[in-house]
Amino acid sequence: MSQEPLLDQFIESLRCLPGVGPKSAQRMALHLLERDRNGGRHLATVLEAAMERIGRCSRCRNLTEQETCAICANDQRDRSLLCIVESPSDVIAIEHATGYQGQYFVLMGRLSPLDGIGPAELGLDALADRLAGQPPGEMIIATNPTVEGEATAFYLQRMARKHDIPISRIAHGVPLGGELEFTDQSTIAHAFSSRQRVES
Amino acid sequence: MSQEPLLDQFIESLRCLPGVGPKSAQRMALHLLERDRNGGRHLATVLEAAMERIGRCSRCRNLTEQETCAICANDQRDRSLLCIVESPSDVIAIEHATGYQGQYFVLMGRLSPLDGIGPAELGLDALADRLAGQPPGEMIIATNPTVEGEATAFYLQRMARKHDIPISRIAHGVPLGGELEFTDQSTIAHAFSSRQRVES
Repeated sequence: MSQEPLLDQFIESLRCLPGVGPKSAQRMALHLLERDRNGGRHLATVLEAAMERIGRCSRCRNLTEQETCAICANDQRDRSLLCIVESPSDVIAIEHATGYQGQYFVLMGRLSPLDGIGPAELGLDALADRLAGQPPGEMIIATNPTVEGEATAFYLQRMARKHDIPISRIAHGVPLGGELEFTDQSTIAHAFSSRQRVES
Repeated sequence: MSQEPLLDQFIESLRCLPGVGPKSAQRMALHLLERDRNGGRHLATVLEAAMERIGRCSRCRNLTEQETCAICANDQRDRSLLCIVESPSDVIAIEHATGYQGQYFVLMGRLSPLDGIGPAELGLDALADRLAGQPPGEMIIATNPTVEGEATAFYLQRMARKHDIPISRIAHGVPLGGELEFTDQSTIAHAFSSRQRVES
């Protein structure tokens, strides 16, 4: 509390950012006020525009300011591959790390009946229409290997089988650079049972 | 890079916040877009207002949206005590931790000739006028115990002596809850030489 109402309100409002507590919020506010007013003004403008204009792609539910996102609108991308992910950050991660040239469908969550998140909340009715109308040649399931992610993956597999769409899942196992000694038991067990034969 | 220009611009603009790298910026942007649009809109409004309206107090140089800050404008505060600090966060820290009821003067920096920060940049001419016109009964120097903070303190002491103003400095030593074993040598040396006699 600085006894200045607008400054206090400013510090408080920064706490809507994830991982920002009272101390960091104060540090951020004073930094912008003392050293980077232009950065602060620019952030205010862009933030407002982003909140108003960024919505969801009508095809894949990813975040975009257009009717369809850049990936769905791109004719160069392979429409026979469809990768299902939980969130927009997963799309960014896959785009960064791989040369994947197919399309995506973003669930914006995972099945979690206790939190009231069912198939409708994840747009699975739109996905079912798409699988029926323009069935992809391969559906890649890339939900997270958590309990709820696994349940979601299971549900997606059933949907794909209905339309005879080939399904694949990204591999789970010991991460590169990881060490068996420090890897958790369930990951090791999974990696062991999913071992792949090496052709000689 | 998400291939969405506004989203990328939004993520980039969050990096003006101190301690926010590319990963945190992306996390913050997606959090606001997916889960807290109202918080984001509110932050945009307050941020813009803060950048435009918060300036410096004409008396003490602290941050305020008024002509004089709440502390300088408060008649209840003791005008015979003047505490000199480096930054607005120091004012907040002292207000939180102590029952100090005097006034402040905020340097907004410290003497650092190599960075082109001299007495003029710290408003020391305004401070000199104030010491001559309305000399306080005590000047408390609370600059940080760094090399530049010490040089600033030394300069302030010379200014105060010119007007025969009693000077004090906040105590430096082993912090409460600290242990001698883990305290740096210069702090221990300072604490040792500044030891105070205990009256029996």
